[in-house]
Amino acid sequence: MTLTALTPRRGTPEPPASSPPPGSPAAPALADAYARVRAHTEALAAPLSAEDQVIQSMPDASPTKWHRAHTTWFFEQFVLVPHAPGYRVFDERLAFLYNSYYLAAGPRHARPRRGMITRPSNAEVADYRAHVDAAMARLLADPAALTPALAEVVTIGLNHEQQHQELILTDILHAFAENPIAPAYDPAWRWRPATPADGMVSLPEGIHTIGHRGDGFSYDNEGPAHRVLVGPVGIARGLVTNRDWLAFMADGGYAEAALWLSDGFAAVQAEGWQAPGHWREIDGQWHAVTLGGSQPVEPDAPVCHVSYYEADAFARWAGRHLPSEAEWEVAAATGELADAFGVVWQWTRSAYLPYPGYRAADGALGEYNGKFMVNQMVLRGSSLATSPGHARLTYRNFFPPSARWQFTGVRLAAFSA
Amino acid sequence: MTLTALTPRRGTPEPPASSPPPGSPAAPALADAYARVRAHTEALAAPLSAEDQVIQSMPDASPTKWHRAHTTWFFEQFVLVPHAPGYRVFDERLAFLYNSYYLAAGPRHARPRRGMITRPSNAEVADYRAHVDAAMARLLADPAALTPALAEVVTIGLNHEQQHQELILTDILHAFAENPIAPAYDPAWRWRPATPADGMVSLPEGIHTIGHRGDGFSYDNEGPAHRVLVGPVGIARGLVTNRDWLAFMADGGYAEAALWLSDGFAAVQAEGWQAPGHWREIDGQWHAVTLGGSQPVEPDAPVCHVSYYEADAFARWAGRHLPSEAEWEVAAATGELADAFGVVWQWTRSAYLPYPGYRAADGALGEYNGKFMVNQMVLRGSSLATSPGHARLTYRNFFPPSARWQFTGVRLAAFSA
Amino acid sequence: MTLTALTPRRGTPEPPASSPPPGSPAAPALADAYARVRAHTEALAAPLSAEDQVIQSMPDASPTKWHRAHTTWFFEQFVLVPHAPGYRVFDERLAFLYNSYYLAAGPRHARPRRGMITRPSNAEVADYRAHVDAAMARLLADPAALTPALAEVVTIGLNHEQQHQELILTDILHAFAENPIAPAYDPAWRWRPATPADGMVSLPEGIHTIGHRGDGFSYDNEGPAHRVLVGPVGIARGLVTNRDWLAFMADGGYAEAALWLSDGFAAVQAEGWQAPGHWREIDGQWHAVTLGGSQPVEPDAPVCHVSYYEADAFARWAGRHLPSEAEWEVAAATGELADAFGVVWQWTRSAYLPYPGYRAADGALGEYNGKFMVNQMVLRGSSLATSPGHARLTYRNFFPPSARWQFTGVRLAAFSA
Amino acid sequence: MTLTALTPRRGTPEPPASSPPPGSPAAPALADAYARVRAHTEALAAPLSAEDQVIQSMPDASPTKWHRAHTTWFFEQFVLVPHAPGYRVFDERLAFLYNSYYLAAGPRHARPRRGMITRPSNAEVADYRAHVDAAMARLLADPAALTPALAEVVTIGLNHEQQHQELILTDILHAFAENPIAPAYDPAWRWRPATPADGMVSLPEGIHTIGHRGDGFSYDNEGPAHRVLVGPVGIARGLVTNRDWLAFMADGGYAEAALWLSDGFAAVQAEGWQAPGHWREIDGQWHAVTLGGSQPVEPDAPVCHVSYYEADAFARWAGRHLPSEAEWEVAAATGELADAFGVVWQWTRSAYLPYPGYRAADGALGEYNGKFMVNQMVLRGSSLATSPGHARLTYRNFFPPSARWQFTGVRLAAFSA
Repeated sequence: MTLTALTPRRGTPEPPASSPPPGSPAAPALADAYARVRAHTEALAAPLSAEDQVIQSMPDASPTKWHRAHTTWFFEQFVLVPHAPGYRVFDERLAFLYNSYYLAAGPRHARPRRGMITRPSNAEVADYRAHVDAAMARLLADPAALTPALAEVVTIGLNHEQQHQELILTDILHAFAENPIAPAYDPAWRWRPATPADGMVSLPEGIHTIGHRGDGFSYDNEGPAHRVLVGPVGIARGLVTNRDWLAFMADGGYAEAALWLSDGFAAVQAEGWQAPGHWREIDGQWHAVTLGGSQPVEPDAPVCHVSYYEADAFARWAGRHLPSEAEWEVAAATGELADAFGVVWQWTRSAYLPYPGYRAADGALGEYNGKFMVNQMVLRGSSLATSPGHARLTYRNFFPPSARWQFTGVRLAAFSA
Repeated sequence: MTLTALTPRRGTPEPPASSPPPGSPAAPALADAYARVRAHTEALAAPLSAEDQVIQSMPDASPTKWHRAHTTWFFEQFVLVPHAPGYRVFDERLAFLYNSYYLAAGPRHARPRRGMITRPSNAEVADYRAHVDAAMARLLADPAALTPALAEVVTIGLNHEQQHQELILTDILHAFAENPIAPAYDPAWRWRPATPADGMVSLPEGIHTIGHRGDGFSYDNEGPAHRVLVGPVGIARGLVTNRDWLAFMADGGYAEAALWLSDGFAAVQAEGWQAPGHWREIDGQWHAVTLGGSQPVEPDAPVCHVSYYEADAFARWAGRHLPSEAEWEVAAATGELADAFGVVWQWTRSAYLPYPGYRAADGALGEYNGKFMVNQMVLRGSSLATSPGHARLTYRNFFPPSARWQFTGVRLAAFSA
Repeated sequence: MTLTALTPRRGTPEPPASSPPPGSPAAPALADAYARVRAHTEALAAPLSAEDQVIQSMPDASPTKWHRAHTTWFFEQFVLVPHAPGYRVFDERLAFLYNSYYLAAGPRHARPRRGMITRPSNAEVADYRAHVDAAMARLLADPAALTPALAEVVTIGLNHEQQHQELILTDILHAFAENPIAPAYDPAWRWRPATPADGMVSLPEGIHTIGHRGDGFSYDNEGPAHRVLVGPVGIARGLVTNRDWLAFMADGGYAEAALWLSDGFAAVQAEGWQAPGHWREIDGQWHAVTLGGSQPVEPDAPVCHVSYYEADAFARWAGRHLPSEAEWEVAAATGELADAFGVVWQWTRSAYLPYPGYRAADGALGEYNGKFMVNQMVLRGSSLATSPGHARLTYRNFFPPSARWQFTGVRLAAFSA
Repeated sequence: MTLTALTPRRGTPEPPASSPPPGSPAAPALADAYARVRAHTEALAAPLSAEDQVIQSMPDASPTKWHRAHTTWFFEQFVLVPHAPGYRVFDERLAFLYNSYYLAAGPRHARPRRGMITRPSNAEVADYRAHVDAAMARLLADPAALTPALAEVVTIGLNHEQQHQELILTDILHAFAENPIAPAYDPAWRWRPATPADGMVSLPEGIHTIGHRGDGFSYDNEGPAHRVLVGPVGIARGLVTNRDWLAFMADGGYAEAALWLSDGFAAVQAEGWQAPGHWREIDGQWHAVTLGGSQPVEPDAPVCHVSYYEADAFARWAGRHLPSEAEWEVAAATGELADAFGVVWQWTRSAYLPYPGYRAADGALGEYNGKFMVNQMVLRGSSLATSPGHARLTYRNFFPPSARWQFTGVRLAAFSA
């Protein structure tokens, strides 16, 4: 992988399909996907020192080393221990350290204290990864062992690791943005302009089916597919840019209570927000701490690192709304949205709730998504930090309305368009 | 008003229509409605001493005296000052003390400190009410003065006061439930059994219009009316009872993490929840602090004072779901739901969000509902504490998912019913 | 009692001796003292409504009603129940509500929730007091019953009640100072100027005995009397005035970190202190909320409602120090200090620690003082709110260094005087 | 330096004098002292990986890397920049990152976020140290440059660095003790038994001079030397051991409220203390996380990692007291105390307050000690982690009464001995 892969991709109307998704359960393909996904994690961590990889800059973020170990533990815990005869656990203590929220998988190390684990060292975690990778390679090479159920767990593990790949980038960016010297993850990295795209995609009233169908991999929260009534509504073809956002700021947007949800304005005041996340005013000019370090804000780039509260206030200021997740999905399926994928996640006005008839799977893996279905808002699309092959039209990302450390941006909607 | 009006009413499938709603803008009717609503507030406060009326038992609750003064300030601020020629403000300092969240109406006294205001005394607040009532009576008696716009503001004020009437009861019950000696608001008050009602109302898939239409009063959040696709789904005819809830408790419901949303289980642990709100275990038997004081839990009564988190966990334990607010509204319109109104508010699985195309009104009154549309869940129906004439099929009540001090209960839904 | 008794007394060099102290154990004298102290409490509460008496404005303060009931519970719990044959407890529930910190006397109602107890009502607490007073009168009238041990407990109870008398005033003043309309406890009350007194009392080096000796009542923390080496040091004859304090403020005292203890400056910033407690700037002039309501600051009055942190910073600004408690006691014994008693308590630079050889008494009454001997600073003298007969040369008052709601002021010391 | 130097030294009655103290200002001696002290810091850090050195386990602790850089910044800021002509600052950004509490030296990086600074890297900090050491060597080699004032600042800097040397050990031990796998700083490290020493040193009443006199280096808080009246009192010759502490625990010491200061028992309950800091119960036996990793508690070793609250409660349980700092100093001067130095700091019952007539120096270095003189208790002696040559009879160490992460133990006193 080259780091340029992280440069914002000119958004395409459909998820990139160049790299075969890890959802295919055929054995050789799965072994390939395993090797590819695992190598991508290591490539993402490569620019980071052991010091960089150990710290945790806030309770919602995790150390790089933790991401690398936790994703490895997933394969050990859910694949190798139950399915690989004679597998030797690398170190029993790691199960405690690198379990995350799987209550059913036993007690866990406290989440906010993940940054305290200097030992096992970064090198030991690399050994752990190698140990598990070797065992996984042996297992995946055995066609007899690879039952459909096992292939499904491996596929979940790979998608799980891809999610952590995005978090490796967002979490280290948060840590670097807190450092007064603003280190660069990749000094050559630069924002690109958003794809120019005027006007709106008009959706007349109609019944559509949303949610995941078909054979490929999806998370349980993307189903059941179900019919919804959508429209009439217009969905903007292009993303909101920094230029737009600077106009909102210049118009006093952060100070005008009437534009904000009550909880949102409370957050503005409590956190002292005056601009998107990772922005700093230096000598009268706004800079953003990016993967390339501190850089002057690029007006034509899409606004990024805004919370739902900010997205909602901006939409109100603009006389617009945010799209619902169903509206987004139907509009994106038309192929007419620019930058739908690969640039910034797009906040919707939909709360993260179960689709009608949703029920979480039993067992530890059932804890994956369902139990977070309250107090969060849905984001759609994908971001520049989303791993190749991981984006999907039906993908439901979710964060609390105050979260800003992900690559989150804004696409507007209008009911009168 | 007799206090028996507060006894849980055998729920009717439609909102009670016996008392003409305050939404009718004809002048004599409006004067009558004004007198009736204002007198009802005083009747609710009558059993409470000045000591009872001054305290605030938590930041989300308010003192009775505050409710009585704040609702009065509303008429003074939004009706008399702008519309009654020569009106003399009762006391300028009260505008500061009894404004609530209307930022546009000026600075406010800090909400969590409302219980510190021993002076003005309870008697002075009674004088304030009388002063405003006399001025209002004069104004409403003048047909020339009563423009439609003014009638609308008065109607909002009456509905606003009715909302505070319900809060007077829920807030004092919270305060009394905290007192180790558990005083009774009305010693004769008792829970009645829920209306027996088996089975479910089946809703086949179909497009329905929900939200408020027509001439009567409604809050802005009840519109715009819009079309939604509902079903297939079944909505339980009856409410969940204490007997059901005791079975959930006996089955370890409060201890089984797999039944709970993650935030919900965190609340269970942080708050030490082991039973619904206001319940106390005394010598091995569960009691509830009710408006009638501490009483043994009545198994056939509807469960009450449960949070959304608890309602959701209970539904999961029961193999069911909560209805969406659209499902609830469509089912309630069939007339087949028992206890839809007048007993306990019913949690829905819908987050409190704007209806498509919703936009808050300009000005101070526009702050009423819209700015709270995040981080809360919708409740439908009405409760035993809801004032006569205030319930409505399209009414959207909303509270954070952890709130339990309202009269909140549970009605189940099933997608396979 | 007349309220003028609360007006700052021209301080005398020795504690006022006009009213015989309650420390005399002769039976008739004790019955008289009992009646006098108990009546004084009621006189202090008389200007306060039931509403005023129920609230608690911060965790460290208590409602007037609570003070009245708690002091009554003390006599019931420690005198009547063990010593009065046939005594009928007024209400078992009150022992739970009105116990304070006596762990040995059983479980207690949570301190920060004292303001939630609207029932028992104020009138019921008056009945409680009357019930206990009648039983106490019977007991104290029986010479045979009044053993020395019992007389000692009664005497402690009376001194205990006198402490709460001072708190009744400081706590209601705190509550009133928080009310935007600043009610007056006694509208006629005014600050008087401090007694003019220049220069310092010079103490050459010498060994002195400090702490309580002799027969009269004292708290256990005033002993053992012990020898200390004091001086050379000078102790200012007069108190620091508001005029002095306004000069400190005008010189930027609250903004100059170098003047402050580190914890003190953190308190300044966290609390936003810019002036003494209960001060408000109104139209460019400083006012203080006093027992007489909001009044312009009187320059010649002693500064009051300052914390130890402020007293210490002021002393540093003035090139002075605070006296130690031993220095204060030795200087006060010379009779040359103005306003030593009856105006404001004077912060010393001594931490509140046990005297050498101190050991708390066994049993519940042993919890009285000793367990608070950490994290607090000693104040000496007495204040305008101290009850008649309660002041004493050896009296050790103590509060955390951030406390400002007592009548606390400043007397300076100099090592080069 | 060998790590065995950290093994608890058999305590000697006087501070170890083998290594010449850095307080001697002769130029060659100062250059030697500089080299020796700086090398000791690096030796202490040597067993720690870059990962170990970057984290901060609590706000009161600091990363090893920070200690190494901050002590270096001290010499750059206060010696080289003002006194070394032509000195080139290593990196301007480090002044912001590695200033600590010197308000007068400019803005600072927030203390609780010190563990977020992964860059500058550990290697860059090593370069920073080398850069400053070279410049210092040049400066100290120039007899003409080494004025007495400069020698004094250098001496302060060396003593300052020695204080941080002790913190390097206590802070990393805190971090390791939090890690579930309990890494060892030095796997060979073991506790040694306390020196057996029965009975007490009796001090009759007498006037003594305490505080620093003479020519050697001392901190400003050790003066002015002044006369105090001490005794009669007995001071235990030996330290309290783990065997003693286990008896206290077995007797229910941590559960018996009557033994504790009120704030102390609140800390016991809030923190869940059941044993000294860093102790863990494993399979029914108490272990301590030490510099040698997790080890069974050694009964004959001195108890360590106890707070003032625990020391005070233990003394009360034992029918004893803690010594005052004056008593400790007078007793230690007799040469009869075992383990006075080099094992564990010993809590005294003295609050950390200024000696009579103390006044902090002007300028940034004046912020060193004086501003912390409130809310802390004095410890005397020195610990196994105190650097060679840093201990002193008059040394006043101080920590809040709840602190347990230092090497803190207990020596008892008795007034009747």
